[in-house]
Amino acid sequence: MTLPAFPDAALLDRFARIVGDAHALRAADEIAPYVSERRGLWPGASALVLRPGSVDEVSAILRLATSTGTPVVPQGGNTGLVGGQMPDASGREIVLSLSRLNRIREIDLASNTVTAEAGVVLQTLRDAADDGDRLFPLSLGSQGTAQIGGNLSSNAGGTGVLAYGNARELCLGVEVVLPTGEIFDDLRKLKKDNTGYDLKNLFVGAEGTLGVITAAVLKLFPRPKGREVAWVGVDTPADALGLFGLASERAGASLTAFELMIDSSLAFVLRHIPGAVAPLGGGHPWYVLVEISSGRSAEDARGLMEEILTAGFEAGLVTDAAIAASLAQADAFWKLRESMSDAQRPEGASIKHDVSVPVAAIPEFIDRAWQAVLKREPAARLVCFGHMGDGNLHYNISQPQGGDPAAFLALYREINDAVHEVVRAFGGSISAEHGIGRMKRDELIATAPPVAIDLMRRVKHAFDPAGIMNPGKVI
Amino acid sequence: MTLPAFPDAALLDRFARIVGDAHALRAADEIAPYVSERRGLWPGASALVLRPGSVDEVSAILRLATSTGTPVVPQGGNTGLVGGQMPDASGREIVLSLSRLNRIREIDLASNTVTAEAGVVLQTLRDAADDGDRLFPLSLGSQGTAQIGGNLSSNAGGTGVLAYGNARELCLGVEVVLPTGEIFDDLRKLKKDNTGYDLKNLFVGAEGTLGVITAAVLKLFPRPKGREVAWVGVDTPADALGLFGLASERAGASLTAFELMIDSSLAFVLRHIPGAVAPLGGGHPWYVLVEISSGRSAEDARGLMEEILTAGFEAGLVTDAAIAASLAQADAFWKLRESMSDAQRPEGASIKHDVSVPVAAIPEFIDRAWQAVLKREPAARLVCFGHMGDGNLHYNISQPQGGDPAAFLALYREINDAVHEVVRAFGGSISAEHGIGRMKRDELIATAPPVAIDLMRRVKHAFDPAGIMNPGKVI
Repeated sequence: MTLPAFPDAALLDRFARIVGDAHALRAADEIAPYVSERRGLWPGASALVLRPGSVDEVSAILRLATSTGTPVVPQGGNTGLVGGQMPDASGREIVLSLSRLNRIREIDLASNTVTAEAGVVLQTLRDAADDGDRLFPLSLGSQGTAQIGGNLSSNAGGTGVLAYGNARELCLGVEVVLPTGEIFDDLRKLKKDNTGYDLKNLFVGAEGTLGVITAAVLKLFPRPKGREVAWVGVDTPADALGLFGLASERAGASLTAFELMIDSSLAFVLRHIPGAVAPLGGGHPWYVLVEISSGRSAEDARGLMEEILTAGFEAGLVTDAAIAASLAQADAFWKLRESMSDAQRPEGASIKHDVSVPVAAIPEFIDRAWQAVLKREPAARLVCFGHMGDGNLHYNISQPQGGDPAAFLALYREINDAVHEVVRAFGGSISAEHGIGRMKRDELIATAPPVAIDLMRRVKHAFDPAGIMNPGKVI
Repeated sequence: MTLPAFPDAALLDRFARIVGDAHALRAADEIAPYVSERRGLWPGASALVLRPGSVDEVSAILRLATSTGTPVVPQGGNTGLVGGQMPDASGREIVLSLSRLNRIREIDLASNTVTAEAGVVLQTLRDAADDGDRLFPLSLGSQGTAQIGGNLSSNAGGTGVLAYGNARELCLGVEVVLPTGEIFDDLRKLKKDNTGYDLKNLFVGAEGTLGVITAAVLKLFPRPKGREVAWVGVDTPADALGLFGLASERAGASLTAFELMIDSSLAFVLRHIPGAVAPLGGGHPWYVLVEISSGRSAEDARGLMEEILTAGFEAGLVTDAAIAASLAQADAFWKLRESMSDAQRPEGASIKHDVSVPVAAIPEFIDRAWQAVLKREPAARLVCFGHMGDGNLHYNISQPQGGDPAAFLALYREINDAVHEVVRAFGGSISAEHGIGRMKRDELIATAPPVAIDLMRRVKHAFDPAGIMNPGKVI
């Protein structure tokens, strides 16, 4: 890859003319929101943020970028957690915001598809599906800000994966602008298409390093007629695993969420999130949030939930359970789960992991990873919660109570490595749903099989020989 | 790509030594079954068929092939319909049979996965899942012969796609030997893994042109407790589409098949397949086979089926229907559907299409494609059947009754082009589930967007610079 030229004023002007001055941001205060993210982990710099209003403008931008060796960082809602959407600190990189490409081009209710541009906010898409009496099942804490292009580029996960799959599985076709400016139009609504290599899935999850996704065809589903949410106390992750097996066997695709949470996660929420109420009396070492969705009726969902919980009690897996009595209570249960990340902040410094292992390995993984952490910091606190049904845990560690945050964070790398070593021993993933971005790039390169890294580099070079697409990310 | 060297005797000896003489076939009668396929469309030639017994042997074969520029054609059960598994007629190409890599390495019931080698026969895998009280849902007419490696390399479809997806969606991880002989071991059991580019999905569906899949981790599902099959008469494809909407809305993921068939398809089966019995009295212009699977109980499946058919009658979409009264009758209904391809043969020459369009476009597609065919041959007979729920039709045309087969086949290219033109007008696929192989390569290159072809060529060159992997296929 050639070292990119530092963009001079004349070059910036050429880029700006493509989108028009109103959409080419150059003032520091206008640029600021695009070069920092919520956690402040990857402060960046840029001389120019471009907000194109059409696919042709994206194409012209990338063509110019390739011909001048100007690195480009695509950005959606700027909610990514691994720095994939951040320019580096050099000021060499131009930010390409997709926010103005925010049109829902078509909703096809008969084919159950929606064609949406990259800048459509996830919540907006969910609402549009809802208006058509359909469900778009991708659901994340940041859905009010996150955009579809970023969701696809990061292959977002979230709470709907168990029944409906990741963003990848929800995507039928893409429109991508390649680094050369060429437009790859593959906006198909097909469930089956065996005409050559699967290019779509290369762009999905590539975090903008191979091209810019400008639009996509996404799957819609019938909106469930009944939904039940239960908060369940269990003694151990092994009991939760048993309950998961029992629930999947009975509910099949109607089991739409199965979230595992350690007691401290709930305790932190009760302590720090106003209005939070414990669903069950007494303490339990672990909790599970179970959601059942029925395409038939509310009664059907209720019956299925009761059957599962009864079977769970009888098998000695469940110690206590509450089924949400209203929609509001169901939302409140979900809010407890979704507040767990925020509730960790007031407890001091934390070291986080977004990992997955085979579902059956979860209990043993939790235990072995915890032994590894305790060796490094005997007073650390485990704040583990996540999508058990997907084998995906947010295996977070909070600092010792009242201890020194800096002293704890000094262990970041060591604890990270120790936990990830256990992940690898189980054939797991060190990034289940957040991606690699800038955060885990070095670790990926250092720990993935050299053959895999070599293949990824070959793909990168074949698609982006000038190396202008989101450099320093993923690979 | 370099022109491959014609393999001389000394080179053949080097290849043979890798697997041992017993597994290096050189006699014409031993080679014969590997260089022809069922329909006799792509007669090939080869001086050597290698049957390696380990992944290391596959690796050694490909390493030698790359270093000597010897083209290699991977082959599974030899059931492919587009010539992807056939060597060409030059005799230059070596056949690499995966049949001896036929071990099921592990069944993990707790994680609902099976790890199987490429040469495992699909039916064997289905049986092994069944023994563990699980379902492996990939189901094809050729499942008694087809092998997992070929199923993945061709991203096989079949009758289980509606609820469970194509082979691609059933695959969690792969082990691939690259053209260089390097082994890409990505045999993961993870539902979520966002660590870099999606290499797995490049190998799945690549028809052996990027490397050789030697093993895979596949998903298992709970075995349904109830299954109901109905044979339904409808007046038009539009009514069938209405019934599909109604059935999906009520049954969701419990709707495990929705097959559309024109009356002539059934008539041919009744005429030519011994023991075939019409499920309904009287004639109907179109038929639908509906399958409901319930994870709960037999009664539940029955109730759901009755509800759907009642609603279909009330909406005026269904003219008559029979629910299979026994497992044997359900199998008989399925056999009617599965015999439709064979039953076409005694009716003379046929021109076939394996196409997909957006589900909602099926009625209009059928009509417009038929007008295009009639313009070329007014006495042609439409024999259309397929997986309506997936938007995938086998849009087959039989010759005029009593006419000259050769005269009809002289129209092959013209009718093919005319139908595929309609397919493209609907944003459809000219190969929904059978792949490209040798059969559709020229058409793919001529009609796909040049950008897509260029990207595929870049991938091919990046993975197989020596051009030894299954040359002349796909791209």
